Formats: sequence, C-alpha cells, structure tokens
Amino acid sequence: MEVRLRILYTSVCHTDLSAWRSEVPEGERAFPRILGHEAVGVVESVGEGVTDVGEGDHVIPIFNGECGDCAYCRSATSNLCRRYRSDGACRFRSRADGRPIFHFLNTSTFSQYTVLDSVGAAWNVANVQAGSSVAIFGLGALGLAAAQGAKVRGASKIIGVDINSQKFIKGKAMGVTDFVNPMDSSKPVHERIREMTGGGGVDHSLECVGNPQVLREAFLSTHDGWGQTVLVGIYSTSQLLPLHPMELFDGRSITGTIFGGVKGKSQLHHIAHRCLQPDMNMEELITHELPFEKINEAMQLLADGKALRCIMHL
Amino acid sequence: MEVRLRILYTSVCHTDLSAWRSEVPEGERAFPRILGHEAVGVVESVGEGVTDVGEGDHVIPIFNGECGDCAYCRSATSNLCRRYRSDGACRFRSRADGRPIFHFLNTSTFSQYTVLDSVGAAWNVANVQAGSSVAIFGLGALGLAAAQGAKVRGASKIIGVDINSQKFIKGKAMGVTDFVNPMDSSKPVHERIREMTGGGGVDHSLECVGNPQVLREAFLSTHDGWGQTVLVGIYSTSQLLPLHPMELFDGRSITGTIFGGVKGKSQLHHIAHRCLQPDMNMEELITHELPFEKINEAMQLLADGKALRCIMHL
Repeated sequence: MEVRLRILYTSVCHTDLSAWRSEVPEGERAFPRILGHEAVGVVESVGEGVTDVGEGDHVIPIFNGECGDCAYCRSATSNLCRRYRSDGACRFRSRADGRPIFHFLNTSTFSQYTVLDSVGAAWNVANVQAGSSVAIFGLGALGLAAAQGAKVRGASKIIGVDINSQKFIKGKAMGVTDFVNPMDSSKPVHERIREMTGGGGVDHSLECVGNPQVLREAFLSTHDGWGQTVLVGIYSTSQLLPLHPMELFDGRSITGTIFGGVKGKSQLHHIAHRCLQPDMNMEELITHELPFEKINEAMQLLADGKALRCIMHL
Repeated sequence: MEVRLRILYTSVCHTDLSAWRSEVPEGERAFPRILGHEAVGVVESVGEGVTDVGEGDHVIPIFNGECGDCAYCRSATSNLCRRYRSDGACRFRSRADGRPIFHFLNTSTFSQYTVLDSVGAAWNVANVQAGSSVAIFGLGALGLAAAQGAKVRGASKIIGVDINSQKFIKGKAMGVTDFVNPMDSSKPVHERIREMTGGGGVDHSLECVGNPQVLREAFLSTHDGWGQTVLVGIYSTSQLLPLHPMELFDGRSITGTIFGGVKGKSQLHHIAHRCLQPDMNMEELITHELPFEKINEAMQLLADGKALRCIMHL
C-alpha cells in the first residue's frame, strides 16, 4: 500500500522551520529527520494493493490521509483519518550506518501546495458568506491564501493585520481591502477593527500566526452573537487559551482547523481545480524560485519574512 | 414600553444563590437587589406603546429580551438583543428611605421556567442528532432538562456524571442511560467515558456545573474530529479556559450558550408547548413546593443539593 514519488517541486513552510528549530512538542522532536511537506511529484512505482494511483501520475503528497473507511472518513464533519493519523514508520535509513531517519508529517518532501490548506480554512471551516467581513491576522502565505478564499466567497470587507507593512502591498493583490498595522497605534487592534466595522466587529477572524496574544485580539475582533475565530497558525507553547469561560457566553466561537477542513483524497482536487481558474491569484504567493541545493537560502528567506513561498526544483 | 406583572409562582436557581453569595464579577454585585428570575405571572397593567401583551395575559418573564429589530434579533445565529441586553434601570425604591433597589437579570422575580433554558441547549446549540451520544456533567435541574432534550432528539446514549449518586435515580426517569460517579474510581472521567463509547468518546458533552476542571473533562470526553462541548454552567472565577490552543486542532469544538440559544419572544413558546406534550417529563424537576415566605428554606434546599426545583407560590 505504499507509493514511491519523484519530487518535482517543493517549497518551505513555517512548520518546517519550527520543526527544524525544535519549537514543537517534545514527542515530535525526532532526529535525524527529513523535513518538508509541501510538494508535487510523479509516481515512480506503487506497492501491492495500490489501485488509485499508478506510475507516471502527477500527485500532491498530503499529510492527512483518507482511508475512506473509518468513522472519521465517513463523517462529513471531520477530515481526520484513523488509519493515516500518524505513521511511526521509518522508510529511510542512513547509507553510512543504516540508522533510521525519521519521517515528517507523513510526507518528508517539500511541496504540498499549502495554499490550498488555508483557502480551505476560509471556505470550509469559516464558511464565509457573501457580504460578510473577515479579519486575517498574519499576512504570510496562509493568511494571503485565506484572503483569496474569503474574496472568492464574496466577503465585502477583508481586513489584513500584520506588523510588517510590506505585506500590505501583496495583500491588496490577494483581496485584502483594509489594513491594520498594530504598531501604528497604542489602541488595541480589536478596538480598531470594531471601529472599522461600525462598532460591532467582523463576522470571522483567522489567526494565522500562532501567538496566544494575537489569538486573543482575533477573538475580541469578532462580533458578539455570531463571531467565529478560526485557528490556522500552529502554537509551539504550552500556554492555555487566552480566554475566560464566560467570554464564550457572548456568542463568539473558536475552532481549530487542520488542512482547512479539507478531506485529502476526495475533496482536495476540487480546490486544486478551483485554484487554477482565472479569478484566483495563486501565483502571487510564489515570490522566489531556487534550485533545491539552495534550500538553506530558502529557509533563511522565509525566516526573515522576505519570502512568501520559494519554489525549489529538484 | 413597560409591563407590570403579578407573580404567581417562582423558583430558585443556582444563579440566584451565586448572586446572593457575591460569586459573580465585581461589576454585577449591586445591592440592595431583588433576586429571582424563574417565574410565571399575570399581566396587571401595561405602559404606553405595549401592544403584544395585555392585562390578564399569563406570561413567563425572560432575562434575554427580543426587540425583533436589531442586528442580533434579525440574525438566525444569535439570541442576543442589542436593546434588551442589560437594563441599568432601577424600577424599585425602598419604602423606608427612597433608596434605589437594583434589578436582577432584567426580571427580579422568581420563576422563569428554567427547564426550557437547557432543553434549548441540547436542542438548539448542541443540535443533538438521533443515534448520537451525549455526556452531561452535573445532574441538577439544567443537566436533567438537557438529558430530557437529548432523549427527545433521539440520542441513543446519555451518560450522566455527578458526584452525588442520589441524582442518578431521578436521572433515569429523565432519559439518562448510563452513570459515572467521578468518586468511584481514580481513573479520569474522560477515560471512563471513552471506554463506554467504544474508545472514541461522545458526540456532545454539556458542562452544567460551572467548574473549569469539570469543563476540561467534558471537553476531553468528546470524540475527536467532531466532538462538541457546550458550556451551560456559569463560571464565577476569572480562570482561563483549561485548554491548550493545539487541543482545538483535533476537531473538538467548544461553545457557550445563554438561554439555550432560544430567542425569548419568537421561539420560547414553541419549546413551552413541546414541554407540555406527554413524552416530556418536566414535572420530575419539581421536587418541592413551599409558600413564598419560606424562600430561605428553598435557598437552603438547593444549596444542600436536596432540591432540583422548589416552586414557591405567592
């Protein structure tokens, strides 16, 4: 049931940086390890039992599998999978001494089209409606893709929040209509966003940073009664959610998303096709191209906030 | 736009006890004050502009009004109301010295049929489906009414959790199918509930106690991928939600509810009529009846866990 892929293109995501820096829970700090989870490749050979892909097929490797058979896969409300949740398998060994080399996110290669990931978040999880307002905290590749998703769903106001004003230029091209730089004022961001939305706040906020203080601002930026905050960013700290239980009684909700709520096998291709249509602006996310040998340079570009996505060809 | 009611019956809820003991946020500790918010009454007179009720009408006073006109009332997803959110009005004065006496929960009288409140929680907010499993933490009047609501919605497993085993007898009559007393074992409650549900956990859990540790158990008792925890209990502490941000990435959600998500004026009567049908068992919640003069006795019965609801006639 295994597939061997030749990677064509791969890119670096902040999750790779976090794993490289060991900013992940202790149990996930396995080394030596092959990082990378955003890639596109071509099937070179398939193992016994594999019927849904064959040699020569172009595929996107995904970290959240879909066996199609377990309670999660049969549920319309989840994109988890009991079978492919985590593979403890070690499919690599060191040539030098035969020692195992660990996998990363079930893929260990660079290029799942992460863009899809957060388009899914504004599309599936947040379920943005035409005419609604959205605030996006963090205008990296995830945040910008979410802005694009919100725009395509017809959101009338898409507020981008980032401490790097450079991100605003690209943001406009991806659908962001209004900008807030938290550094411009001592007033809390949620107050500024409420003022920008007639006093009430936005219908949806997406936290694409992975910072508890930012999460609290994102939560308070939504309209009471129905406001929804979606966690897209990954949290490396063990801090508690920065919310008081009673704050949930104002009708605001908070929810997490992995892979934008998209089921990997049965739903991803719909999103992929949608992204190829002319009203989508996905190329804007690709800011650099480098040969794979320059991966350290690609990592540094992302760490410095200079790149959104750097495509590396192998 | 005011209505004067003659109270016929009133009852005591834990929220009255909490306010009486000042276990509420500082801003809400106004005294002197007339407590009580569960009642039924008859309209004695109406002020200028009141057209929807008239003298002699039997009514249930509600703390969450519904003007019918604001953004919340027009939204299908909220039962808040901009206009009737909180009345700072002081409609009572001391006979002795003319000093103001504060209102409580917009009602200041004892007897809104609280039962409706949490039936709404299992019905509207949790949206319990036929065949699903539900865990209810705290088998007081709210928890038992929620069990009844879950039963009527067709839940196949309704697990009641309470440290007072006496509550289990009544629970059975109200729809609870399985019991867990946390004191019976050193194993965490969420592990016991997962074992009782084939390893996965329940589809919905309702926290009807108002305790952060219980909330954490309720959250972990739900199935990952789609489990939902509804906060029904009121929290007097300023503690943070006892959850790590990453725990929301397993597909479990958490949401609060006030008045079971029911819009007071336009929807409450549907629930009230439903409660009068023969398959409902609402009388089980009334364990005592006393004249109003014995209100201190009624408060003590509730505080000691001996009463579910004590009806007092005026």
